[in-house]
Amino acid sequence: MLKELSDHAKKLREELLEFMHEYVYPSEKVVEEYLENAEDRWTIPPIIEELKKKAKSKGLWNLFYPDNYYGKGLTNYEYAFLCEIMGRSLIAPEIFNCNAPDTGNMEVLIKYGTEEQKRKWLDPLLNGEIRSIFSMTEPEVASSDATNIQTSIVRDGDEYVINGKKWWSTGALDPRAKIAIVMGKTDPTAEKHKQHSMILVPLDTPGVEVKRPLKVFGYDHAPQGHAEIHYNNVRVPVSNLLLGEGRGFEIAQGRLGPGRIHHCMRAIGAAERALELLIKRAENREAFGSKLVEKDTVRQMIAECRIEIDQARLLTLNAAHKIDEEGSKAARKEIAMIKVVAPRVSINVINRAIEVHGGGGVSQDFPLAEHLANARTLRIVDGPDQVHLRDIAKLEIREQL
Amino acid sequence: MLKELSDHAKKLREELLEFMHEYVYPSEKVVEEYLENAEDRWTIPPIIEELKKKAKSKGLWNLFYPDNYYGKGLTNYEYAFLCEIMGRSLIAPEIFNCNAPDTGNMEVLIKYGTEEQKRKWLDPLLNGEIRSIFSMTEPEVASSDATNIQTSIVRDGDEYVINGKKWWSTGALDPRAKIAIVMGKTDPTAEKHKQHSMILVPLDTPGVEVKRPLKVFGYDHAPQGHAEIHYNNVRVPVSNLLLGEGRGFEIAQGRLGPGRIHHCMRAIGAAERALELLIKRAENREAFGSKLVEKDTVRQMIAECRIEIDQARLLTLNAAHKIDEEGSKAARKEIAMIKVVAPRVSINVINRAIEVHGGGGVSQDFPLAEHLANARTLRIVDGPDQVHLRDIAKLEIREQL
Amino acid sequence: MLKELSDHAKKLREELLEFMHEYVYPSEKVVEEYLENAEDRWTIPPIIEELKKKAKSKGLWNLFYPDNYYGKGLTNYEYAFLCEIMGRSLIAPEIFNCNAPDTGNMEVLIKYGTEEQKRKWLDPLLNGEIRSIFSMTEPEVASSDATNIQTSIVRDGDEYVINGKKWWSTGALDPRAKIAIVMGKTDPTAEKHKQHSMILVPLDTPGVEVKRPLKVFGYDHAPQGHAEIHYNNVRVPVSNLLLGEGRGFEIAQGRLGPGRIHHCMRAIGAAERALELLIKRAENREAFGSKLVEKDTVRQMIAECRIEIDQARLLTLNAAHKIDEEGSKAARKEIAMIKVVAPRVSINVINRAIEVHGGGGVSQDFPLAEHLANARTLRIVDGPDQVHLRDIAKLEIREQL
Amino acid sequence: MLKELSDHAKKLREELLEFMHEYVYPSEKVVEEYLENAEDRWTIPPIIEELKKKAKSKGLWNLFYPDNYYGKGLTNYEYAFLCEIMGRSLIAPEIFNCNAPDTGNMEVLIKYGTEEQKRKWLDPLLNGEIRSIFSMTEPEVASSDATNIQTSIVRDGDEYVINGKKWWSTGALDPRAKIAIVMGKTDPTAEKHKQHSMILVPLDTPGVEVKRPLKVFGYDHAPQGHAEIHYNNVRVPVSNLLLGEGRGFEIAQGRLGPGRIHHCMRAIGAAERALELLIKRAENREAFGSKLVEKDTVRQMIAECRIEIDQARLLTLNAAHKIDEEGSKAARKEIAMIKVVAPRVSINVINRAIEVHGGGGVSQDFPLAEHLANARTLRIVDGPDQVHLRDIAKLEIREQL
Repeated sequence: MLKELSDHAKKLREELLEFMHEYVYPSEKVVEEYLENAEDRWTIPPIIEELKKKAKSKGLWNLFYPDNYYGKGLTNYEYAFLCEIMGRSLIAPEIFNCNAPDTGNMEVLIKYGTEEQKRKWLDPLLNGEIRSIFSMTEPEVASSDATNIQTSIVRDGDEYVINGKKWWSTGALDPRAKIAIVMGKTDPTAEKHKQHSMILVPLDTPGVEVKRPLKVFGYDHAPQGHAEIHYNNVRVPVSNLLLGEGRGFEIAQGRLGPGRIHHCMRAIGAAERALELLIKRAENREAFGSKLVEKDTVRQMIAECRIEIDQARLLTLNAAHKIDEEGSKAARKEIAMIKVVAPRVSINVINRAIEVHGGGGVSQDFPLAEHLANARTLRIVDGPDQVHLRDIAKLEIREQL
Repeated sequence: MLKELSDHAKKLREELLEFMHEYVYPSEKVVEEYLENAEDRWTIPPIIEELKKKAKSKGLWNLFYPDNYYGKGLTNYEYAFLCEIMGRSLIAPEIFNCNAPDTGNMEVLIKYGTEEQKRKWLDPLLNGEIRSIFSMTEPEVASSDATNIQTSIVRDGDEYVINGKKWWSTGALDPRAKIAIVMGKTDPTAEKHKQHSMILVPLDTPGVEVKRPLKVFGYDHAPQGHAEIHYNNVRVPVSNLLLGEGRGFEIAQGRLGPGRIHHCMRAIGAAERALELLIKRAENREAFGSKLVEKDTVRQMIAECRIEIDQARLLTLNAAHKIDEEGSKAARKEIAMIKVVAPRVSINVINRAIEVHGGGGVSQDFPLAEHLANARTLRIVDGPDQVHLRDIAKLEIREQL
Repeated sequence: MLKELSDHAKKLREELLEFMHEYVYPSEKVVEEYLENAEDRWTIPPIIEELKKKAKSKGLWNLFYPDNYYGKGLTNYEYAFLCEIMGRSLIAPEIFNCNAPDTGNMEVLIKYGTEEQKRKWLDPLLNGEIRSIFSMTEPEVASSDATNIQTSIVRDGDEYVINGKKWWSTGALDPRAKIAIVMGKTDPTAEKHKQHSMILVPLDTPGVEVKRPLKVFGYDHAPQGHAEIHYNNVRVPVSNLLLGEGRGFEIAQGRLGPGRIHHCMRAIGAAERALELLIKRAENREAFGSKLVEKDTVRQMIAECRIEIDQARLLTLNAAHKIDEEGSKAARKEIAMIKVVAPRVSINVINRAIEVHGGGGVSQDFPLAEHLANARTLRIVDGPDQVHLRDIAKLEIREQL
Repeated sequence: MLKELSDHAKKLREELLEFMHEYVYPSEKVVEEYLENAEDRWTIPPIIEELKKKAKSKGLWNLFYPDNYYGKGLTNYEYAFLCEIMGRSLIAPEIFNCNAPDTGNMEVLIKYGTEEQKRKWLDPLLNGEIRSIFSMTEPEVASSDATNIQTSIVRDGDEYVINGKKWWSTGALDPRAKIAIVMGKTDPTAEKHKQHSMILVPLDTPGVEVKRPLKVFGYDHAPQGHAEIHYNNVRVPVSNLLLGEGRGFEIAQGRLGPGRIHHCMRAIGAAERALELLIKRAENREAFGSKLVEKDTVRQMIAECRIEIDQARLLTLNAAHKIDEEGSKAARKEIAMIKVVAPRVSINVINRAIEVHGGGGVSQDFPLAEHLANARTLRIVDGPDQVHLRDIAKLEIREQL
């Protein structure tokens, strides 16, 4: 039933699978140990840069962007298959220059950046030389309703002056991070969805203060990290504004579609890996007279995992394909649906895998606990389930009534 | 992403949709009232036979069979779309001669019947002149493990003598029912899956005793009904045996694939209709100061319905397509998965619709309660979830280890 | 931890258990067969009246009322234990004159009835000579918000004139039903909760039209039934008004507390019986090489049943005790909580029992399907879960903020 | 309905509540910051020892032990109320010398220790001067089936020689940890539950190697930590054996009952605190035009939290009371039930609170994420749910058949 992949996509997929097995999985523990022993956790494990070079040289690079100029000519649908594979390992996406928020930021720059902006920020991002951050969510308001965002962007002559507190600015602690896309209000008197704008802020601009790293269930996610950042009277040239005043939501919307496909397919990849680990563990452990894998209750878990994963994958591929065919706006309901489903499924599957691993499952010995923490977090990234469920219902009701 | 329907299938789908709106939905209450007032509930409401004629004349007939000779040349995948539509109304499937167990029985006769058998039983079934039953499940054993089936089929000269008790023989109370396919043991000493055979038993054979109608949550499902039937020294010619001694499971397996697609797509159709009713009701009722449709909790329900239905449909279509491409055996895991998912989803969605309908939801005023009873029953038809989950796990483990 | 029962309550409980085993369970099939074969299903099976006499003679009568004059001196907490036992059999409550809505109606008459009203209606009700109905819910509005109720009660001289349509008037088809308590609006201009009143309407009053029986799933619940009743210019003396104009909600609230304890404890009793049946069936059936009761998946079901039942019972007993100690109003949160929990648990447990019974589970051969239909219906009686969850939250928030 | 607390218990409860507010909650951030900035995370924040002294001086010390000599004369039932309160803060239990595994170890020493052992290890534990560990689970076997435990304890003259690998030895990284209770096999040829023994191993014995800290999700739980410990030819005098050879399971069983009450009540305390935080946050945040606390979906969450918590608490108190009245063995089913229920409820409630907190919920800014990690871990401590569900079912079936 599934639309077949092009030969090009199939070949990339094969190469990616091979690369994962040959280089990525074996490097997971190397990265972990490097960071465990690093004096400063906010440094880049050399192996990451090596693998990036290797991936780039093999053409496994910037696969996410659906064209042939910036990307590798994969549709969102095709990339989804590859993105799932990357999602199996927490260190993988960056190695292929396909990690959030850089992918979304590159997309924004490709679509809305001036030539100058592209030269300065997009090119090094596409080359994996620098990293970028996306400063949207704020600690002092419920950002699930993005109209709550309070950061101010006030024009003053040839500059905009930015003031505000942001958090969950992922990647901000990475020493390679150079540029932020910041969302803030340029016109508090405009209508609700025209008040906000997005602007480029180089991280070395005076007044940019990386306040502190945030943890996710005890994980600091070094060396990228998630930061609380304060913007204190930060001044940037007016040319740094993206697309135009009051068009922040327009950019945010366009950015969301493919980004959610990525998040969801990675969550599914994590689930698929968890199921693999579950089955392997169940094959290798005995309790009460038989292997775990022979127990009906464990088999029931395995079956439920397969059922949930397959459904989530079909739904996500379907959404990706709709984006390809009709655009993100037309696919809003489908995108909202996967945003609810994929993290949920990933959580369920990983939880079952943990259950079978016992104590090992919550420890650093398996990637399960960290994947679970991420999947749980994904449930609230871009707004909690409740927000997406509201949107789905609104669109459904509109269609039916 | 979905494989597109052929023009032929699209056209049939359009015609079916139109037929449903013009004839089927308006006849639901007519049928109910006819039966409510009938002296004998085991008689056929005339409108059913009229609608059958009309459907046949429009070519909306025997759509289920995936060829051009017996059916209308639709693949299982294509028919699935139409089957879902029929599932929206409890009276619909028969009108298009697409109702269980006749479809499965016709399939068996097409595949394994002799010319003589086809002439005698298949042709009138294809014409909708007679109805048939399938006598498999037994009251005295756990038939979810079909090797438990005890009915004996013993050769005695040119005849087989059948003895046993069956129940859930759907359609047995229908005055038009003429023929049964009975599963029983021909060789209790053979290996487990070679002991059973299937045999044709005309219902007017001496010794066939329709013991009593079974109810499903209070519904008698007249005029078809589900019967307990006793076969007491029933003698039929040896030529009535299907395929050969010991090949009962072979037939049963072949019969299962498409049949489950049908069951599941109908369950999804029922869910889709329930969601429609839910939204309509929610639009038309107020409580605590606003329409139900404006309440976040109701919207959450609507969104969850859409999420569940869309996933179940994709999974079922995927299974149907795999049957088309690789056969029922290769699609076993996919088929087992939908058998678990579709009734579950249907139950969840209908339950939510009932919740919004209040008392009306459990009454005869809406088709919800009866659809729910059917969906709940579908969870145990062909074995409870636990059996299918075991199969899914077995196949998954086999693939992974 | 549980407060111990008084010796008096313990003795009644022992006698009740004995009565159930000796008389009630063996009569279930007798009642069913009587009705199955009755020309008119709206007649009382003689065995019911016999058992009522016997129960009454043994003092197992009107146990529900928490005093020594009308009842047997049991607290709500104590009666809860007995009520659970009655809930195990669908025919039991009436046998002990403890069935809804008669219990609630008697309670209303005891609390708010005049001497004349008591003599005329309460005494025969307490004696089990007549039956009563409660006409609250209406087909044309969302009655979960009872302020929606539209039936008008208009004073005209010495009479009130009642006009309106009611449904789910349980017991209205019972030939012994003589009196209704009807809720309607006496003053549409008063503040929201002062508009409604309750009034006594003898069922033989001109204009009372029992329109039709409603079914619950496929069950008609003969010989009591649930009716749609139209009140067409029904005239009753002003003395039939209960408590006073505008005090309908006051009566409704007072009626609710103990009534919900009864509903919930019966639902728990039904669950407990379902678990018993599950275990027995699992002990007596084999599949795939072992008894069902030996399978880990079935054991998991059994354990989940026990966990859910025990929690629901404790919660309900706790609510009953709070009513005894502090009154229904103080126990509102506890009462709302059990209204959500008990039907849910009952549904879950019975569903698992059905799963283990296979086809038998949904049929008339076991009380499971009918108990499930009732438990599902109980979820919407007095408003769907959503309404109670709102109330719980409101009270919780009020306590915390 | 609940058995009333003694005046003594009530008073202690009041004092505990006061102590929590005055000293414990305000110290949470102090402890966190101390550790965050400590050069070595395995050092004790001075405030902890200060608070211990204060608690001890106020008599809020060793409350867990149900007698008047070692404890404060509280029954398990009474202590459960206090334990819940301690569970609200992750730093609380130790402050009152009521933290695992010291409580369980003290219990073992009280019950089975010799006078010499008590003098040497129990007295300083009771005084909070040293800490102890419990070495049971092993990394190489499924320890949920404790008969799998492989560590060998071999007699050699006047000594036992211990060899084996253990993990999840909580507290082993604490500099105050001095003594371990180790479970291992003394007789591999004995019948299954007589092969194992427990033995006291001072942590400074040669051959005791604290291999590495284990993390729980990303938390290291410093300064106690969970360690992998290897016992390499560790020699201790024969007098260190507890109770006798082959009696390891006997000790383990006795240890489990009260310990599980503690775990579960703490989990409920954590849930109760999460609900408090949820409501506060929902009161203080707005989205889409109203406060979160006014949204029906949030209210639904709050109601479900209250329902789940109240049920879990009643079930746990009931189990505690049964231990008091009939002993741990008689209460096995009740204890197994709470082991499944309490972590589940705690997970559900905390997850809802996180949902309402958005990004803050998974960060270090609220205790939610760490409580969730602990609650998830509790599901596998002493064996995953599946093991307890099997036990519950076994006991239930035994009672019913």
